[in-house]
Amino acid sequence: MKAVVYEGPRSVSVKNVPDARIERPTDVLVRITTTNICGSDLHMYEGRTDFETGRTFGHENLGEVIEVGQGVDKIKVGEMVCLPFNVACGFCKNCERGYTNYCLTAQPDPHLAGAAYGFADMGPYQGGQAELLRVPWGDFNCLRLGEDARERQTDYVMLSDIFPTGYHATEMAGVRPGDSVAIMGAGPVGLMAAYSSVLKGAGKVMVVDRHADRLALAERIGCLPINDATENPVERILDETMGLGADRGCECVGYQAHDPQGNEHPDDTLNKLVRSVRFTGGIGVVGVFIPQDPGSPDPLEKQGKVALDYGMHWFKGQTMGSGQCPVKRYNRQLRDLVAAGKAKPSFVVSHELPLDEAPNGYEHFDRRDNGWTKVVLHPGAA
Amino acid sequence: MKAVVYEGPRSVSVKNVPDARIERPTDVLVRITTTNICGSDLHMYEGRTDFETGRTFGHENLGEVIEVGQGVDKIKVGEMVCLPFNVACGFCKNCERGYTNYCLTAQPDPHLAGAAYGFADMGPYQGGQAELLRVPWGDFNCLRLGEDARERQTDYVMLSDIFPTGYHATEMAGVRPGDSVAIMGAGPVGLMAAYSSVLKGAGKVMVVDRHADRLALAERIGCLPINDATENPVERILDETMGLGADRGCECVGYQAHDPQGNEHPDDTLNKLVRSVRFTGGIGVVGVFIPQDPGSPDPLEKQGKVALDYGMHWFKGQTMGSGQCPVKRYNRQLRDLVAAGKAKPSFVVSHELPLDEAPNGYEHFDRRDNGWTKVVLHPGAA
Amino acid sequence: MKAVVYEGPRSVSVKNVPDARIERPTDVLVRITTTNICGSDLHMYEGRTDFETGRTFGHENLGEVIEVGQGVDKIKVGEMVCLPFNVACGFCKNCERGYTNYCLTAQPDPHLAGAAYGFADMGPYQGGQAELLRVPWGDFNCLRLGEDARERQTDYVMLSDIFPTGYHATEMAGVRPGDSVAIMGAGPVGLMAAYSSVLKGAGKVMVVDRHADRLALAERIGCLPINDATENPVERILDETMGLGADRGCECVGYQAHDPQGNEHPDDTLNKLVRSVRFTGGIGVVGVFIPQDPGSPDPLEKQGKVALDYGMHWFKGQTMGSGQCPVKRYNRQLRDLVAAGKAKPSFVVSHELPLDEAPNGYEHFDRRDNGWTKVVLHPGAA
Amino acid sequence: MKAVVYEGPRSVSVKNVPDARIERPTDVLVRITTTNICGSDLHMYEGRTDFETGRTFGHENLGEVIEVGQGVDKIKVGEMVCLPFNVACGFCKNCERGYTNYCLTAQPDPHLAGAAYGFADMGPYQGGQAELLRVPWGDFNCLRLGEDARERQTDYVMLSDIFPTGYHATEMAGVRPGDSVAIMGAGPVGLMAAYSSVLKGAGKVMVVDRHADRLALAERIGCLPINDATENPVERILDETMGLGADRGCECVGYQAHDPQGNEHPDDTLNKLVRSVRFTGGIGVVGVFIPQDPGSPDPLEKQGKVALDYGMHWFKGQTMGSGQCPVKRYNRQLRDLVAAGKAKPSFVVSHELPLDEAPNGYEHFDRRDNGWTKVVLHPGAA
Repeated sequence: MKAVVYEGPRSVSVKNVPDARIERPTDVLVRITTTNICGSDLHMYEGRTDFETGRTFGHENLGEVIEVGQGVDKIKVGEMVCLPFNVACGFCKNCERGYTNYCLTAQPDPHLAGAAYGFADMGPYQGGQAELLRVPWGDFNCLRLGEDARERQTDYVMLSDIFPTGYHATEMAGVRPGDSVAIMGAGPVGLMAAYSSVLKGAGKVMVVDRHADRLALAERIGCLPINDATENPVERILDETMGLGADRGCECVGYQAHDPQGNEHPDDTLNKLVRSVRFTGGIGVVGVFIPQDPGSPDPLEKQGKVALDYGMHWFKGQTMGSGQCPVKRYNRQLRDLVAAGKAKPSFVVSHELPLDEAPNGYEHFDRRDNGWTKVVLHPGAA
Repeated sequence: MKAVVYEGPRSVSVKNVPDARIERPTDVLVRITTTNICGSDLHMYEGRTDFETGRTFGHENLGEVIEVGQGVDKIKVGEMVCLPFNVACGFCKNCERGYTNYCLTAQPDPHLAGAAYGFADMGPYQGGQAELLRVPWGDFNCLRLGEDARERQTDYVMLSDIFPTGYHATEMAGVRPGDSVAIMGAGPVGLMAAYSSVLKGAGKVMVVDRHADRLALAERIGCLPINDATENPVERILDETMGLGADRGCECVGYQAHDPQGNEHPDDTLNKLVRSVRFTGGIGVVGVFIPQDPGSPDPLEKQGKVALDYGMHWFKGQTMGSGQCPVKRYNRQLRDLVAAGKAKPSFVVSHELPLDEAPNGYEHFDRRDNGWTKVVLHPGAA
Repeated sequence: MKAVVYEGPRSVSVKNVPDARIERPTDVLVRITTTNICGSDLHMYEGRTDFETGRTFGHENLGEVIEVGQGVDKIKVGEMVCLPFNVACGFCKNCERGYTNYCLTAQPDPHLAGAAYGFADMGPYQGGQAELLRVPWGDFNCLRLGEDARERQTDYVMLSDIFPTGYHATEMAGVRPGDSVAIMGAGPVGLMAAYSSVLKGAGKVMVVDRHADRLALAERIGCLPINDATENPVERILDETMGLGADRGCECVGYQAHDPQGNEHPDDTLNKLVRSVRFTGGIGVVGVFIPQDPGSPDPLEKQGKVALDYGMHWFKGQTMGSGQCPVKRYNRQLRDLVAAGKAKPSFVVSHELPLDEAPNGYEHFDRRDNGWTKVVLHPGAA
Repeated sequence: MKAVVYEGPRSVSVKNVPDARIERPTDVLVRITTTNICGSDLHMYEGRTDFETGRTFGHENLGEVIEVGQGVDKIKVGEMVCLPFNVACGFCKNCERGYTNYCLTAQPDPHLAGAAYGFADMGPYQGGQAELLRVPWGDFNCLRLGEDARERQTDYVMLSDIFPTGYHATEMAGVRPGDSVAIMGAGPVGLMAAYSSVLKGAGKVMVVDRHADRLALAERIGCLPINDATENPVERILDETMGLGADRGCECVGYQAHDPQGNEHPDDTLNKLVRSVRFTGGIGVVGVFIPQDPGSPDPLEKQGKVALDYGMHWFKGQTMGSGQCPVKRYNRQLRDLVAAGKAKPSFVVSHELPLDEAPNGYEHFDRRDNGWTKVVLHPGAA
């Protein structure tokens, strides 16, 4: 089968690799029809992780079931399914409490937790930027879609990662109807956090970024765009909230937050949230932070440390939730919203490409070229 | 009336000051019979805050009502009451959601929130280490006690601060029956967090400290004491939890965490919790951290920053709650436990002194002299 | 001052009565500019309660502060305020946990709980269908509005009761984004429950009634209207949910539920919800049920009993919440939605009348005359 | 293998039946060493259900794994396991939200939900009062125990049903530290609800029954026994709570509630709870109620209806949760409490019998003979 293969820093190719196949009785085999490039693929693409050359990327996947193992009870051949990026067993201590983001079975390293398709340090699972994908524990991991999914793949594929991830940020932050919300980052995940806030009935959603195309999308869904290249976002958020600060904050950038000159400041967005979220407010952090970053010039960041305004955070009595999203906690409810026509997360998609053009898509998306907000690949397409 | 007056770093005296009195129709006047010295009094006593000389300490107060204002409906003269350390109005946006720790009315600075008796930067309210105390918004702030309170003052007075504060740590951490809990610090608040965990049915409670007298108290209430002067507490906690880490963690030390040589490391206990609490675990932080600490030799700490192992924290998907305790959220329930004989938080008390001996009490408690775990003052006593 | 006075079954008049005034230091005096007739006024208007003749109706009130007592700290003369229908002290065991619907101080009968303006058995408080209203514990009970409230009174006045009450139904039912919701009753409260579901991002909201004007309003806000005079609502809801039943149900009718012939069946809507809500689903009941109804021909209803399909309810593992709404739990958040232009609950208003025309308004609204969905009175208007 | 076989009303025998075996790749086969007779077995034993003659009872099971299917990943041969009474798939809409009590896959009837071993209308699964038990979806359903379980089987077997079921009642009721709790019924489930309340730190636990042996057990674990044959339980509970009523109530009897003369009153315990639980209080109902009971002399009960004091329930703003327990939601946490020595639910066990003596056990337990509080069978024992 054809697949996107990692060749080394900033280099991918589309190659023939061995077909994915049923390996365990509980596996499901899916013919991938839509698969996205994610911002976290870029961390690996840039060579900042220990992702192995020769492996296949792709953890935002949707397609049609073409085979099921003998231990599969629910999923049937021919069904359209969307796969959560987390690979999860459904029965370990974490999965059974809803923490499929920290599955203890799918992750082979006993000191770690959590697994994903085509992801550094998250188990041996191949990615879905390919023609076929093996889905372990298929009954648990496949989200069944209706037949309308064949026509609306760019909406439904967002259930695999960024829509639930953005939603998770708002859940950890505690967004409720009427709340004011500050969102750091208008990349695909930040836009999904903004969109989730709107869907939940937030009163005012403020989105901070410096890319005009992304801020325009934020405005299009009813949010207030704040360009941090031209104004101080903390002051603006305080102004917009009678000096009190936002009720809730979402971090959707991660440790690669940087100034307009490109210098990374891993503490930048977190500390801006500490200062712009009100006393008693909640903060949800879905931007990626990593336990160590040996290549960083910053001595704290080398060890995965962040110089957090912790005194202020404590003084204000804020709460903070963090980590990857447990996609299954939200994907049914969000699917029902998409099916009812009440959510159309495909508004972030800027490009749909056949699989063969993946290298081109990676290159533009990695450079944050204007207008390249979200790239969707279609393995079967011409 | 007689009161404990702050004279400057490490100096208090007992002096005559003007009587506390009813100032607003909603005030209640209390004759204080029991009032504790708190660990947070020591921050002020040591001169590390801008607490004004001439002011009176004391935010852990209990006594008898001797007068009520004309706008008071519930509280009656002659009732025994315990006062939450927070001064709170009951009707601002924060109070009405249960965040009496961040009252917007009682705190005069519009950029801040929260007030307390006899506390730096927390409003103009005099402390209760005195014969009389004015209680603003008396109907809201007074917790009524039964007549048995006259005989069990050292139990009931703990409802003013440290029992709810320790309990709050366990609530923010999410402690449930069966959980394993790691607690940093076996001072009075840490012991109350441990005790609260036990009362809630935790499966295993591990308490880290290096004072033998405090660890002995932890053991007495059924916890596992861990002496961090003689063993690595992170390794021990991992060993006790099959390598997975504790389900929950409570920080009960604060920014003055220090090594056995006395050097402060504000990040010490937080980072130990990040490493010893499991993936998906919750952490509650009630130890005090401050927005700035100009006198500190550490450049980060000067600005109130902490070099947190944030990458690891995020990677493990932990949650963190922080800040002072909203005492009223818990004090009724805990009072009912004390009244039913199911909780006796006075086990932490080492010394009961008349008010005149307050200077002596401060001196010993500040030095953490062996056996001086908790000092209770009785203003009326001989 | 002029006020709407109850004269006996189905009879009210507008008369001069003694002016409302400040009675306690914590009182606030409000000049009422907008006050609604509520469906629960009709219970009293019809003579089915022991509401005393000579008393004034009106518990949905909005106006301008014209005087404050000496113990009032927050509310200022000249501010526009909306009053929750519940009169609540803010400091009893129930109020401090957020149950202002069951205040123990405002209700004089020690065996009961909860108070309201102009309401049978809910304390001595006069209603606001008058030129002036005394608001006890004014700092706690007044919700401050912005200056825009002067121009948008019909939106903001809904914060006094029906908007929070409808929202409360959805909270007790557990409505979340994506859920399917069945709502019994499209009166003003049912429409607000439907509207709240929409604002929260429900996937499908089904509203059952038999009045065309009300069903049309439900459809206008994006809901599916179901006319139970022409189809079986239980079957229709099951059809709309793949046979599984709705995720959540809201009861917004109460014990006066009746068939098209007008015969009351207090169990009708509850049992329809039990049958049309799915296994594990939640039901919120804000329609009024009463502990005894001596005038009823039904022997069970005489004693306030309902022949509930409890076996089915238990078998399906449903949860049920019930009772009046604690308005203060929601009115700030909902105010912020109105202020942000994201909620316009005035869509239910059919008639705005000067106070003098109240008798006319009561007559039409009580008969459910077509087009009389919600009547708003303006005491100051010509 | 030998198994307890239902022969008809009040008749069971121990017979040879075909061996249980692995049927699906996800199955686990368990050699049962301990299996209890449950109160709900008695409903079937008495012939009040459509349980088929020739089938095997037993849904409270513990034993050793002797074989696993090829799709099983976690469970290993030789491990001691305890099985939740619910048979659940782990991946349907209900299971994945934690409602394993309403599994949509294990229940073959598409209009129903939920399955269990050896239970009327809950799927085709054989019971565990036998030498062998087939466990579907073994990785999901088996709770692994430590080696200490071999010596403490009567404690650990309670994790299969009655300990989690009693705990579930307290969760639905909302029991928190300090609360007063009223419990109707001191059968095994009622005693477990009482024990769970104690473990959670309730302030006062009142248990209503009329069997001296059961009330004595309630008292032994620190509860207040109330004999409803000799005093009015509603009045006593009000007296014990200053007239306000209990904070929480647990129904642990079900539709077979009866007076001392043996006449059934399905509304009896529910209405007593409505009257003895306070305004705003929560009620959890785990006693069994059924959708229809054709053999009942009562016309309401025939249709599964209960004449509930709904008017009073609504007036008091109580909440009510109902239904079977989702055992997996609690069994890990409770296992950890047992393992830590902090819970010993075996205190309810009155008799341990070899499997062959099952008929004798059923007879005595069904008659509620004095001292027969809970019967445990050991299939392998002599």
